[in-house]
Amino acid sequence: MSLLLLAPHRNNMQTWKEALLEEDPNLDVEIWSDVEDKERVQFIVSWNQPKRTLNQFPNLKVVSSLGTGVDHILRDEHLPENVSVCRVVSSSLVRQMQEYVLMAVLDYQRNLHTYFRQRSEREWREHPNKTIDEIPVGVMGLGKLGAPVAQMLAKNGYQVAGWSYSKKELDGIETFVYDELEQFLKTTRILVCLLPLTSETHGILDLDLFKKLEHPAYLINVARGEHLVDEDLIYALETGWIEGACLDVFSEEPLPDRHPFWNRKQIMITPHAASFTPPHEVAEQVVENYKRALSGMELLNEVDLEKGY
Amino acid sequence: MSLLLLAPHRNNMQTWKEALLEEDPNLDVEIWSDVEDKERVQFIVSWNQPKRTLNQFPNLKVVSSLGTGVDHILRDEHLPENVSVCRVVSSSLVRQMQEYVLMAVLDYQRNLHTYFRQRSEREWREHPNKTIDEIPVGVMGLGKLGAPVAQMLAKNGYQVAGWSYSKKELDGIETFVYDELEQFLKTTRILVCLLPLTSETHGILDLDLFKKLEHPAYLINVARGEHLVDEDLIYALETGWIEGACLDVFSEEPLPDRHPFWNRKQIMITPHAASFTPPHEVAEQVVENYKRALSGMELLNEVDLEKGY
Repeated sequence: MSLLLLAPHRNNMQTWKEALLEEDPNLDVEIWSDVEDKERVQFIVSWNQPKRTLNQFPNLKVVSSLGTGVDHILRDEHLPENVSVCRVVSSSLVRQMQEYVLMAVLDYQRNLHTYFRQRSEREWREHPNKTIDEIPVGVMGLGKLGAPVAQMLAKNGYQVAGWSYSKKELDGIETFVYDELEQFLKTTRILVCLLPLTSETHGILDLDLFKKLEHPAYLINVARGEHLVDEDLIYALETGWIEGACLDVFSEEPLPDRHPFWNRKQIMITPHAASFTPPHEVAEQVVENYKRALSGMELLNEVDLEKGY
Repeated sequence: MSLLLLAPHRNNMQTWKEALLEEDPNLDVEIWSDVEDKERVQFIVSWNQPKRTLNQFPNLKVVSSLGTGVDHILRDEHLPENVSVCRVVSSSLVRQMQEYVLMAVLDYQRNLHTYFRQRSEREWREHPNKTIDEIPVGVMGLGKLGAPVAQMLAKNGYQVAGWSYSKKELDGIETFVYDELEQFLKTTRILVCLLPLTSETHGILDLDLFKKLEHPAYLINVARGEHLVDEDLIYALETGWIEGACLDVFSEEPLPDRHPFWNRKQIMITPHAASFTPPHEVAEQVVENYKRALSGMELLNEVDLEKGY
């Protein structure tokens, strides 16, 4: 039996292999596409696997995401039935996401992007700082990443609201559930998207939603590119519903050269860099899940295939 | 008797006057250089007053800084003897400084400046995030701004050390005193300067000091331009002792077009924008000090002219 690392667009698979072998030197770890015997593969760790790969392993038991998101697995039409899906969870992933969102909020609040632009033109001009009262933050999605992000912002004095499918209770945060979306948006000026990508949340960040925010609004998307209707963001920037955005994720990555987002100076673009999974930190839980899979025990951080997260 | 607003380079003096009159409508407030009778001026609120002005008022009792810094008053050779000096303190000034320093730390830690540059060239390339263990922060100066800045960083998980003239005890922060400078620098990679500007701290940020930091180091100067030896910073960048810097203050402001800092992409430049004094928030304490000055009572936030802060 073997464990297969299946993430052809990532360049650190050797590091992953070493991290797993440090946990258990007897492990049989293979790196796609160098597979000796497909019948032996029972556990796959994947990130953006190519189409028609997941159905090539007759004895596959579990596919684990290499990160927190599992949409690349769930939407794969070649994911066999009866295969379980899980993901890795790490405090470092959470911490990185907290840092990124806090940085994006501060960048908007304190005009850092403007000073960056002015700097390149040797321009010395002050701009008023926004106070925390002026920029209530709303976090969509209060799961493994959304909840701690909301809490870190609250701890730093920001007024924070949260929206999630089921009711969450979080200290210092006003929480709203599914059918209270309008109330949630009405109290939000900086909108942070940390939703899972499901059929219901696909395209949720559209013009209709932007219009319901407090204005001028700012968007931070650190979930998935498919949450956002790209042309609606550009239209909202053009018409003033949205003042600016910080985007780390895109429907097509790398963001193509011809994409109009590049032409909008109000949009900050980072290359899906909010949060990287550190192999050495999560190796232990991957190996643990591998053992559980082989022995038929309940997995850690298993994904509910119905809900999609 | 009158109160004079003496800050010719600031453009919000009318707002200051209104804020003071809201506190006490009977106040006689004048704005430099429109002074009816110099003998009536007993209290001045100043920021970068022109030379040879402070000695024009025979009945002057107090000069209050319009902000936290008082170096522009103390180094004015025309400050008459027997005039007291004070400053304003506000939670908003503190908050703004905390935000700015946290933003500067995150910018360095998470490569935001690099992503800004790449964005302008449509370049999609990830860079590793620094973890909080890799970037111990050291705050020089643990006064009204330095202490809360150090505490906010510590609250957000950073490893923080502080250095000050006299011993300070701060929760979660390792503090060093005057003669322990080397030990303090040895444990610091991101150096934040929030010192008062005195003859002892003038030029303290020099090559000799940079060499004693943990490397590669990063400098955040939010105190005064005169703390820094400009050519030493450039030499340290050139030779690798310092990896980058975020500067909000400069010996000459606005930073002249010809200054070599503009040519160094590793130096982030903001136009003395870390912290602005909000007139409506500090009007009450200015009026209170005005009354105290007239009645000969002890001032709030009076400056020790010996120490210089």
